Amino acid sequence: MSLEGKTVTLAHGAGGKQTAELIGQVFKKHFSNPYFTADDAAVLPAPEGKIAMTTDGFIVSPQFFNGGNIGKLSICGTVNDLACMGAEPLYMTCGFVIEEGFPMDRLEEVAAAMEKTAAEVGVRIVAGDTKVAGKGQVDGLFITTTGVGQIMEGVTTSGALAKSGDSVLVTGDIGRHGCCILLERDEYGIEADVKSDCAPLWNAVQAVLSEVPDVHVIRDATRGGVGTVLYEIAQESGVGFLLDAESIPVQDQVRGVTGMLGLDPMYLACEGTLVMIVPGDKTEKVLEILRQQPHTEGAKVIGTVTEEEAGKVVLRTQIGTQTYLPQPGNELLPRIC
Amino acid sequence: MSLEGKTVTLAHGAGGKQTAELIGQVFKKHFSNPYFTADDAAVLPAPEGKIAMTTDGFIVSPQFFNGGNIGKLSICGTVNDLACMGAEPLYMTCGFVIEEGFPMDRLEEVAAAMEKTAAEVGVRIVAGDTKVAGKGQVDGLFITTTGVGQIMEGVTTSGALAKSGDSVLVTGDIGRHGCCILLERDEYGIEADVKSDCAPLWNAVQAVLSEVPDVHVIRDATRGGVGTVLYEIAQESGVGFLLDAESIPVQDQVRGVTGMLGLDPMYLACEGTLVMIVPGDKTEKVLEILRQQPHTEGAKVIGTVTEEEAGKVVLRTQIGTQTYLPQPGNELLPRIC
Repeated sequence: MSLEGKTVTLAHGAGGKQTAELIGQVFKKHFSNPYFTADDAAVLPAPEGKIAMTTDGFIVSPQFFNGGNIGKLSICGTVNDLACMGAEPLYMTCGFVIEEGFPMDRLEEVAAAMEKTAAEVGVRIVAGDTKVAGKGQVDGLFITTTGVGQIMEGVTTSGALAKSGDSVLVTGDIGRHGCCILLERDEYGIEADVKSDCAPLWNAVQAVLSEVPDVHVIRDATRGGVGTVLYEIAQESGVGFLLDAESIPVQDQVRGVTGMLGLDPMYLACEGTLVMIVPGDKTEKVLEILRQQPHTEGAKVIGTVTEEEAGKVVLRTQIGTQTYLPQPGNELLPRIC
Repeated sequence: MSLEGKTVTLAHGAGGKQTAELIGQVFKKHFSNPYFTADDAAVLPAPEGKIAMTTDGFIVSPQFFNGGNIGKLSICGTVNDLACMGAEPLYMTCGFVIEEGFPMDRLEEVAAAMEKTAAEVGVRIVAGDTKVAGKGQVDGLFITTTGVGQIMEGVTTSGALAKSGDSVLVTGDIGRHGCCILLERDEYGIEADVKSDCAPLWNAVQAVLSEVPDVHVIRDATRGGVGTVLYEIAQESGVGFLLDAESIPVQDQVRGVTGMLGLDPMYLACEGTLVMIVPGDKTEKVLEILRQQPHTEGAKVIGTVTEEEAGKVVLRTQIGTQTYLPQPGNELLPRIC
């Protein structure tokens, strides 16, 4: 049955026949798997050992952007949060809040992107919820995803584990998602082809942790970007960071746009790029593994962890000047997830 | 620090210092427990055996109502969905989408209600997410909760397990939450004191299942009410229902309001009332247990499961007339969760 021209109505959210139709035509079609439930909750085999659990809300506007859509983003965000804890993503749930009048075919596009992204890392969508809000009560479509994963044996990552002598890596060039969304909003009249980095990174993380289980910190640099993440880790671990400004990978297009707007790419969101802090002697091994994995081919070392300057992030420029990276806080950057 | 007069701003959602302040002042204060995480995901001991996982979005308007608020509701909804699967609620996450300008003290009221409701059934809030949407992009406050529970050994409940000869119970009077929200909206100019039934029911369910593990179906009669739930079970189990109209408990106030508005209490939402379908010979035992538990003192048998009239719900009135309960579908009832 074609969904073209159809829109979501309040009756689709009332819990009766129309709700069942919406679920059947859009969600079951894409999320179908042996665990997907029609009951109040999915019944699942329990994971073993330690599990990780995380939730994330996605209210990005626009919902469709260069490199993805809100559905893909909602899977990546939760998969990557689990990956940061060294956890294999097993089960996910998704809650939709849909504005009355939202086009059905666009909703299906979102569901299809979720299916594809989940499949890439083998996570199962096991339960969902759909609410329809009246026109003007929600901006298009919000998605909240929650994930449960099983933490790999022998792996303990935490923002409090960075140690002096560790290396700081990023798994790719930074600030691309934030920059992409800025451009999509079209408020500045800037033309540039910047594609969101939005990607699920479990496969890359698993490859690293299988060979180097003692990675100290993994963080996804979403809201607040790499700068915010590093300041957080500096606080939690009581260490400083010395970054080599020249080695921080930023796409030319992103550099151009942020330059024009006076923004710092260090504070723009990534949705497919992680910060990893690894023991100094494992740096080359981790880099080598990351460079062979999809989405992390552009991994680079951007600095080291220091005892000095605890709680601070220091940038060293090519000519040898050292400055503090400005503290995160008052930037009014656009909402990007 | 007093939150009075303060409001949520876009900076509270930007991922930096203000986000940390909001989380510290409102959420950590109320959700604090050994598992609550500052990392990307909470690290938790894995449950054993079979687990249940469920998610629910809450977009009720108004957010504060007679008998509760959106926070209490968001915990009850997920706890009760787990309870319906015979699962002890262990871990919950909550995702907030907050409209710019939302009063901080009201937000704290919501968080406090969540804390209290979670504590009543011993479930732990382990992770959260906060997004702030611009004014007009969201109607006040939306909450999405997700829960993981451990299914009691020897318990298997499902909408497909109703059998001819089973009894149909409700754990209390019906339609109260839906009616309460209708009145709170004040669109009809009706004055009546109807308090939402909103309550977490795990303790009552656990008491029943500990002594009667072979309960066939447990469903919470939220969106669509008891009528929708019974039609769903009739379909899934391939059975009919014969209800005794006189025995269906409806508060006088609710009966009055629905009478005036031409609504059917069978299709109004409950948020603290379950439908239970139990083997005929266990009926008295289950009733006796429920009547000793908080929130389910008003449990009643409302009918039986029949082989005849498969897929249908038949109402028998006091004078002996039998009619079909109208099929759920096109009612445009107010959104209530």
